[in-house]
Amino acid sequence: MTPNIAPKSIRDDLKNRARMLVACPDQPGIVAAVSRFLFEHGANIVQSDQYTIDPQGGMFYIRIEFDLDNLDGRREQLKSEFAKVADRFSMDWSINRAGRKKRLAIFVSKEDHALLELLWQWQAGDLEAEIAMVISNHNDLRGLVESFGIAYHHIPVTADTKAEAERRQLELVMGQVDAVVLARYMQIISPKFIEHFANRIINIHHSFLPAFVGGKPYAQAHNRGVKIIGATAHYVTEELDGGPIIEQDVQRVSHRDNVDDLKRIGRHIERIVLARAVSWHVEDRVIVHGNKTVVFN
Amino acid sequence: MTPNIAPKSIRDDLKNRARMLVACPDQPGIVAAVSRFLFEHGANIVQSDQYTIDPQGGMFYIRIEFDLDNLDGRREQLKSEFAKVADRFSMDWSINRAGRKKRLAIFVSKEDHALLELLWQWQAGDLEAEIAMVISNHNDLRGLVESFGIAYHHIPVTADTKAEAERRQLELVMGQVDAVVLARYMQIISPKFIEHFANRIINIHHSFLPAFVGGKPYAQAHNRGVKIIGATAHYVTEELDGGPIIEQDVQRVSHRDNVDDLKRIGRHIERIVLARAVSWHVEDRVIVHGNKTVVFN
Amino acid sequence: MTPNIAPKSIRDDLKNRARMLVACPDQPGIVAAVSRFLFEHGANIVQSDQYTIDPQGGMFYIRIEFDLDNLDGRREQLKSEFAKVADRFSMDWSINRAGRKKRLAIFVSKEDHALLELLWQWQAGDLEAEIAMVISNHNDLRGLVESFGIAYHHIPVTADTKAEAERRQLELVMGQVDAVVLARYMQIISPKFIEHFANRIINIHHSFLPAFVGGKPYAQAHNRGVKIIGATAHYVTEELDGGPIIEQDVQRVSHRDNVDDLKRIGRHIERIVLARAVSWHVEDRVIVHGNKTVVFN
Amino acid sequence: MTPNIAPKSIRDDLKNRARMLVACPDQPGIVAAVSRFLFEHGANIVQSDQYTIDPQGGMFYIRIEFDLDNLDGRREQLKSEFAKVADRFSMDWSINRAGRKKRLAIFVSKEDHALLELLWQWQAGDLEAEIAMVISNHNDLRGLVESFGIAYHHIPVTADTKAEAERRQLELVMGQVDAVVLARYMQIISPKFIEHFANRIINIHHSFLPAFVGGKPYAQAHNRGVKIIGATAHYVTEELDGGPIIEQDVQRVSHRDNVDDLKRIGRHIERIVLARAVSWHVEDRVIVHGNKTVVFN
Repeated sequence: MTPNIAPKSIRDDLKNRARMLVACPDQPGIVAAVSRFLFEHGANIVQSDQYTIDPQGGMFYIRIEFDLDNLDGRREQLKSEFAKVADRFSMDWSINRAGRKKRLAIFVSKEDHALLELLWQWQAGDLEAEIAMVISNHNDLRGLVESFGIAYHHIPVTADTKAEAERRQLELVMGQVDAVVLARYMQIISPKFIEHFANRIINIHHSFLPAFVGGKPYAQAHNRGVKIIGATAHYVTEELDGGPIIEQDVQRVSHRDNVDDLKRIGRHIERIVLARAVSWHVEDRVIVHGNKTVVFN
Repeated sequence: MTPNIAPKSIRDDLKNRARMLVACPDQPGIVAAVSRFLFEHGANIVQSDQYTIDPQGGMFYIRIEFDLDNLDGRREQLKSEFAKVADRFSMDWSINRAGRKKRLAIFVSKEDHALLELLWQWQAGDLEAEIAMVISNHNDLRGLVESFGIAYHHIPVTADTKAEAERRQLELVMGQVDAVVLARYMQIISPKFIEHFANRIINIHHSFLPAFVGGKPYAQAHNRGVKIIGATAHYVTEELDGGPIIEQDVQRVSHRDNVDDLKRIGRHIERIVLARAVSWHVEDRVIVHGNKTVVFN
Repeated sequence: MTPNIAPKSIRDDLKNRARMLVACPDQPGIVAAVSRFLFEHGANIVQSDQYTIDPQGGMFYIRIEFDLDNLDGRREQLKSEFAKVADRFSMDWSINRAGRKKRLAIFVSKEDHALLELLWQWQAGDLEAEIAMVISNHNDLRGLVESFGIAYHHIPVTADTKAEAERRQLELVMGQVDAVVLARYMQIISPKFIEHFANRIINIHHSFLPAFVGGKPYAQAHNRGVKIIGATAHYVTEELDGGPIIEQDVQRVSHRDNVDDLKRIGRHIERIVLARAVSWHVEDRVIVHGNKTVVFN
Repeated sequence: MTPNIAPKSIRDDLKNRARMLVACPDQPGIVAAVSRFLFEHGANIVQSDQYTIDPQGGMFYIRIEFDLDNLDGRREQLKSEFAKVADRFSMDWSINRAGRKKRLAIFVSKEDHALLELLWQWQAGDLEAEIAMVISNHNDLRGLVESFGIAYHHIPVTADTKAEAERRQLELVMGQVDAVVLARYMQIISPKFIEHFANRIINIHHSFLPAFVGGKPYAQAHNRGVKIIGATAHYVTEELDGGPIIEQDVQRVSHRDNVDDLKRIGRHIERIVLARAVSWHVEDRVIVHGNKTVVFN
């Protein structure tokens, strides 16, 4: 699960709030063991969500928000002690501070709508994240991004320079951000890059997947005569448009809508769906299992 | 377009209401010619909807509802006179009486939900159609159908008897119904049958097409981890699940929903989508162009 | 919370599944105490949902589904032992068997759509309840109800006979049903009747409350020119249309829809919203706090 | 209907496209007369929408988009000749150039979300309007607005200065804008101001009207425990929150959402609903009749 990365931005009102994510094979006593551990360490459970794929031998997932006095001072010790509980149940787990905002790099090309929605929600305080930088293969959106006081890196990409460009991207983001958001970035990400950010690269695909995989999905949708179009936010894997889906939404269209209308309508769906997915990711609400997601929202 | 078929069921309050559908290459003066024709014959336009794919050389579609005194006595003459206007603009056209309900044959297998919705809406007066008969490859739903006073024909289908079964089906429906509704009928319809009812066989597919074409779409959807499922009503063509889409709708699902949950949720979407598509079809609101539909609703 | 009432209908596959509902003032250690109790008694938590209105001094609500071998034989003892935990935290609580379906009385007048949806979902196995009886102030729907094998009681209501009618209704339902569903029952329920079934009478109101309280809500909606209409399922309290809202849904309408169209569209919303609310109620997913509901769905 | 106001911004690709809006008592021959008139003047009807409240004596509304060569040079003559047709049918009518964008004044206070959506859609080319100016009773949003190259007028409003402030507002907008948009402007508009812009002031109300009229609608909604919240765009009349509704939309909420969550979710609905209403208004798609709207979209 997501490692923590400096530098940090701390929300004071959430400075003692932590989020625990646990995944393990289901068996009796997990909730009891975890909640007893938290109680004995003085934590108060504020919110918990839990999901078992199959009570007979399936996986068990839990997300707990708890308050703990002096969280910052005690988190390392808490984690080292929880490791014993985790061992007993073969848990994959993390404990993150809610008050420490995750850091994002946003990748864009020329279209601004998905980026703008993230910037606007961030500025309005609706997106609990730090936007550490924007990286683009074009220079078009520099002015916009810099007007928000955010660093803009222009790294052109051509067939010849692709490997070098990605090396420069990695240099910028490695150790600096928790997740990468592809806000209509029109380049394929290499397997090597993906490996560094497994389940931490969020892409917005401009169709209701798995319908209309690949290029020009609105033209495909228009050609098929669908009555509803959609957008899909998913984690990026090596399979094109095939990664775990985080969120989807749709809107009704009609025969009156041509491809340009679909694009216009679609832009609104894209920005809302991507913003939701990013919010849920940074709030530790998304757990990946296999090629699917559990979303505790 | 749909021929009229006896016997007839007439709604008295709509006995002078007609619906004109026209499709032709766009050019100036079509609306003027049609509306002038109607005015000079004493008709009053109550509702009109119109759509041009492309003002420069595209197709033009119009649906007009009009009232005409003594429609029944004057319809044949009206049609023979309109033929001259139609010729001038190379129109494909029809004039149907709104008061004469279209007759339907509903094909089902064992699942009752889509059938029941049609029966319920028909009984409630929400579906402007006559349900002439139900044909099934199983006997399970006979009691239900007959309790509504509707004829039930059990025509078993096996690999060996498929051709013969279809011959019997055609015997029952030819000249007796205006359209065929596949309300979860789990058999492939042959090209020959389709030819007899071109753009008049409505199927409900239990997914958001073109995602999840073919069998077990809910299992496919669960496997892909989608966050929204849907259903699609379309006209049946030789291409499996590939015909013109009439209507689609969707509902949100989550990681908590297993395949059975998706089926249960899906049943509700299926019956609503199919009922809407059938309603629009029998009210002459659907025009097929190429592999798409214009729906004036 | 809802008492259990004989006779019983047991789902065999859920015979060892229990549902615990707890409401109490929030304080640290509640989850730990409850989950430890369950673990030490051999129960396996399958699903849990929890909600705290305010971590500082608010109310805490939890719903836990757990499996326990030989639930039937051990439930009474489990309850008497849990009472000690409950006392410590001042809990209002219940432990219900998931396998024992709740029994419902459905009250109707002349409109059948909301009733039919419940009957259909019940027959399809989608509604986890027993429909013990239907009570109506009219005789119109007797044939329909009896065709489902369900008892139909015709109790006419006039201004003069209202008190006597309610006495007969109470005689039929007291000790026989867990909840009462008003499926478009067009009579006011008296405070005395409500008292016997506090938070156990579910009504469907044919508008998006609190808009259009009282009579003829579709006429009110048409008059106001709204672009969306809705329906609201709520628990019945003494305040007309003012009880805790369980579920609402809406649909888009337009200027083309007259009052009859709104009623027709509304019927579809009403039956879906009521069926959802009843499902959630019988699955112990709804907790009333003050004049609101917590719905764990 | 909306008068035209200089200075003008013309879209070249639509320079020969006109929009005709007609309202008159229904009678036979209206469509024939209008479409014959257009045909005889060389116009080609591209799109037409029509609505009759009641074929027996109700009002008739039609919106026609047509192309006419040299529209700019011939529009005045066309209008003077159409006046004869209009007289015959007692029409209230207008013929607007589609290529001439309507000019808007946007009134705001401190919240930026509704304003930003309009600015963003305008910049993206999705809103077919000129934003002539922004007027605010605060200075907070000056930087934002001016960064879009739009004039910002700060006119403080207090109980004492209200009349004078409105006089200054009128001075700025009279003859300069076609419509006024209240994008979360937290001041009451006086009857005198409204009179100058009858059916041309669009307000966004942050609730699903007519639920939660007046102040603090999200607090009201939270207090009532609704499961869906909404927003309403309407023309401003003297009755507070009582004017003709142009558009509404809603989103599902749950018991987990506190008043701040409702506000955050609501902001998204508000900006989408207002942007849609403004788009429809500037594209001449909205006709007011009585206290309702006909929206041809």
